[in-house]
Amino acid sequence: MDVVEIKEVIDKAIENYLYEKEPSMLYEAVKHLPFAGGKRLRPIIACLACEAVGGNFVKALPFAVALELIHTFTLVHDDIMDKDEERRGMPAVHVKFGENTAILAGDTLFAKAFEVASAIKDAEIAKKILRNLAIMAKEICEGQQLDVEFEKMECIEEKQFLEMIEKKTAKMFEQAAIGGAIIGKGNEKEIEALRIYGLNLGMAFQIWDDCLDVIGKDIGKPIGSDIREGKKTLLYIYAYKNSPSKEWLKNYGKADASNEEVQKIIEFFEEVGAIDYAKKKAREYAAKAIEALGEIKESEAKKELMKMAEFAVEREK
Amino acid sequence: MDVVEIKEVIDKAIENYLYEKEPSMLYEAVKHLPFAGGKRLRPIIACLACEAVGGNFVKALPFAVALELIHTFTLVHDDIMDKDEERRGMPAVHVKFGENTAILAGDTLFAKAFEVASAIKDAEIAKKILRNLAIMAKEICEGQQLDVEFEKMECIEEKQFLEMIEKKTAKMFEQAAIGGAIIGKGNEKEIEALRIYGLNLGMAFQIWDDCLDVIGKDIGKPIGSDIREGKKTLLYIYAYKNSPSKEWLKNYGKADASNEEVQKIIEFFEEVGAIDYAKKKAREYAAKAIEALGEIKESEAKKELMKMAEFAVEREK
Repeated sequence: MDVVEIKEVIDKAIENYLYEKEPSMLYEAVKHLPFAGGKRLRPIIACLACEAVGGNFVKALPFAVALELIHTFTLVHDDIMDKDEERRGMPAVHVKFGENTAILAGDTLFAKAFEVASAIKDAEIAKKILRNLAIMAKEICEGQQLDVEFEKMECIEEKQFLEMIEKKTAKMFEQAAIGGAIIGKGNEKEIEALRIYGLNLGMAFQIWDDCLDVIGKDIGKPIGSDIREGKKTLLYIYAYKNSPSKEWLKNYGKADASNEEVQKIIEFFEEVGAIDYAKKKAREYAAKAIEALGEIKESEAKKELMKMAEFAVEREK
Repeated sequence: MDVVEIKEVIDKAIENYLYEKEPSMLYEAVKHLPFAGGKRLRPIIACLACEAVGGNFVKALPFAVALELIHTFTLVHDDIMDKDEERRGMPAVHVKFGENTAILAGDTLFAKAFEVASAIKDAEIAKKILRNLAIMAKEICEGQQLDVEFEKMECIEEKQFLEMIEKKTAKMFEQAAIGGAIIGKGNEKEIEALRIYGLNLGMAFQIWDDCLDVIGKDIGKPIGSDIREGKKTLLYIYAYKNSPSKEWLKNYGKADASNEEVQKIIEFFEEVGAIDYAKKKAREYAAKAIEALGEIKESEAKKELMKMAEFAVEREK
């Protein structure tokens, strides 16, 4: 099975697991993002990790779907907190259904994720996976809290930034790879190799994502959202530390900044070398992810995992 | 062990499980309600149900704490949705820490609940309990959605009201009793009896709670909150169906109604017999709960469970 086919199976599984209909407004809000497409990176990694250690990816499906639901839950709540109005090219859940229903839709997606993951047959594995998912979800909340707190700070250290994105984003990629490998009955060495793969891929993915916020095409939301929200991205931190002039700071974090003002900051990031620096960092993480796969025996799934790490730092959206 | 001692052990367990400290603002918000006391009804029911089928309640502690954390998570998010500003005699989490941190604190409590419940040793039991908790949490969200939707409606049927409180409140009491009985290795008949006990106790508890909103003393939040929020309680439904005059409706759901306006509605509820009707209903459910315990062999724990059902419809706060 190649990735396209796996993705189709995942899409179908998401649809099947989200069978609920009533109360109708709640479940329309719940299904708004999961049914609007998405790259399904986390569930695909889970399925590929399962296959890469010799398992059948079908066994990883409940876990894979649970990951996507938790991911979607975080998007729904983050969009409320960040006042983001667009997601996947559509109105955010809180814009379309109101904030109350959006809070509840996020909560419901979270609950559904654990319901779905509990469908894993082997009780020992199910217990382990559910525990890992819970701890991961807690860490995502911690990462999001840091992200929001950092907005109000003048600047942070690169180390703080890396800790924040590790929790907010990379931990889920890490758990996707670990969980897939556990379900596929991988040995300890394989699980550890895939853990390192997932964690580094997640770091690469998030840093590249922050770059796309300023140079991406057709990313499903307005360019420069991070700038308007005052996010302390790697671009910001690099620019802050490497430019004597602080003139550009006055429009950073200005919620109603004009497109022109945002564009000026983007040009400044370009000139000062912030975008190149972040891209280089992202590629370093992707290289570490690929290196970790050295411990995994050759297979179609392994090749696809390598391709994903390359894709993470090449994509334009 | 009597209930007072069990409660002390539960309080201590909650404190021990919530060991996290950073990010500090997030965890202050997370601990705000759990450390502010509370009756701990759900965890106590879980522990007593475990003992009532011959188990040791200590084994039920992770599950019991998980229930309290899920309960608290729903309070934090509900208070945002309902714009309630007080809880347990203190500012609500969103009032003290802001809405963003309150959303995240609720999410963190939810995640923590599953982490804590995954500490149940027996994998088969852990998997079952985690699945039941997930489905229960989903139903609580559905119940809350109905509660919010009903606010905007002129009136609803008693049947709709009962369905809503079953999901929003009674299901958690039901699961508390079931889960405790499962962990205590009760037989099928015992689990079913305790299920019926929990469900009916939950119904009694919620209906009585709605009465306390208008006649309670020292309930930790302002009297008449339901009236100002336009909640479709059993009092409202009864009064609506049994009074020719609809004059009182004009101040029902008025967020800034004066204390006098609220008091007038309460007096009207009294006159029309709405409070007596709701109290009677609550007592009927409590009686059903006690009746269900007929299937359970005599024990200290069973006596305490009976006392709780009596307490549910006698308490003044």
